Amino acid sequence: MQRGLLIILSGPSGVGKGTIRKYFETDERLNLTYSTSMTTRKPRAGEVDGRDYFFSTREDFEKAIQEGGLLEWAEFVGNYYGTPLKEVNRLRDEGKNVLLEIEVQGAIQVQEKCPDAISIFIIPPSMEELERRIRGRSTEPEEIIQQRLAKASNEMKMVSQYKYIVCNDDPKLAAELIKTIILRHVELEENK
Amino acid sequence: MQRGLLIILSGPSGVGKGTIRKYFETDERLNLTYSTSMTTRKPRAGEVDGRDYFFSTREDFEKAIQEGGLLEWAEFVGNYYGTPLKEVNRLRDEGKNVLLEIEVQGAIQVQEKCPDAISIFIIPPSMEELERRIRGRSTEPEEIIQQRLAKASNEMKMVSQYKYIVCNDDPKLAAELIKTIILRHVELEENK
Repeated sequence: MQRGLLIILSGPSGVGKGTIRKYFETDERLNLTYSTSMTTRKPRAGEVDGRDYFFSTREDFEKAIQEGGLLEWAEFVGNYYGTPLKEVNRLRDEGKNVLLEIEVQGAIQVQEKCPDAISIFIIPPSMEELERRIRGRSTEPEEIIQQRLAKASNEMKMVSQYKYIVCNDDPKLAAELIKTIILRHVELEENK
Repeated sequence: MQRGLLIILSGPSGVGKGTIRKYFETDERLNLTYSTSMTTRKPRAGEVDGRDYFFSTREDFEKAIQEGGLLEWAEFVGNYYGTPLKEVNRLRDEGKNVLLEIEVQGAIQVQEKCPDAISIFIIPPSMEELERRIRGRSTEPEEIIQQRLAKASNEMKMVSQYKYIVCNDDPKLAAELIKTIILRHVELEENK
């Protein structure tokens, strides 16, 4: 069986990764699946352990880091988030294309460990538009918003680390561009 | 009748614009046409006046500039190149999508005059790869090659002036991304 692709979808927080993903993830030709992440943040209402995240204590998470069990991990607003390597490999070995929607610092780690990963960076039409989006959806205090804005601005500097850059001016077009990228890579794998 | 789109395909010289174009220009869904350019350079073997270019004297070209008859124009390695405005409007009024494959400085001029233009910038995977391509296909003296390299390096700085950026790592994928962009804009026009 042909091994599945590893696709990294990343970009500054607030850029609209989730919205874009909803437009393409249901396309069956893409044969996508998700690797459940591990996190130390508390479950939100409705979230299920093992489905939305593997919820973990800080101790267990740090143990996983030490043992090399995470493809990437990051600390964000006081919580750890990471991707269990075993889970990703299991899915790829089943021939599934694994989509990782992850933070920028995590994405860089994955690319170092998996040079064959297809990394896609979503950029906003402008930094002003990104600020508007971050403020628009947030119910958090100004201090946290300022942290997010500073983080997003730093994350934008990582654009050159990615294979593909897609601007989210029009989420539907962004989704179609991502589909095109994935389908071309599936075709290239088949012809190998 | 719905007015055609104006699509600008640009990028540093040597990046492979022509190769990419060959992959998508024959797709009938795109309803593409070309506006014949005007130039003062001498016809090459096999080139036909009015088909490949409108070949012009420097005097006539400069008169066209004065009269505002050019959507854009540029001087490159001692020759003028430009796009007759009248010709572009005629084709768009017929409902055709006009593709302009033009130099970077020209592309900036068109975007100023036609803010509705869909501008696509092709970038190389790296500057090293661009130099390799420019040297690989050139039969010109080192001095001219150096001019081209310096020009390409300057042109890369204009990337932020464009609506869409497409990397030419894989010409077939680049062509498919451009198709996706054009078809989405056709769809948006139809829904207006």
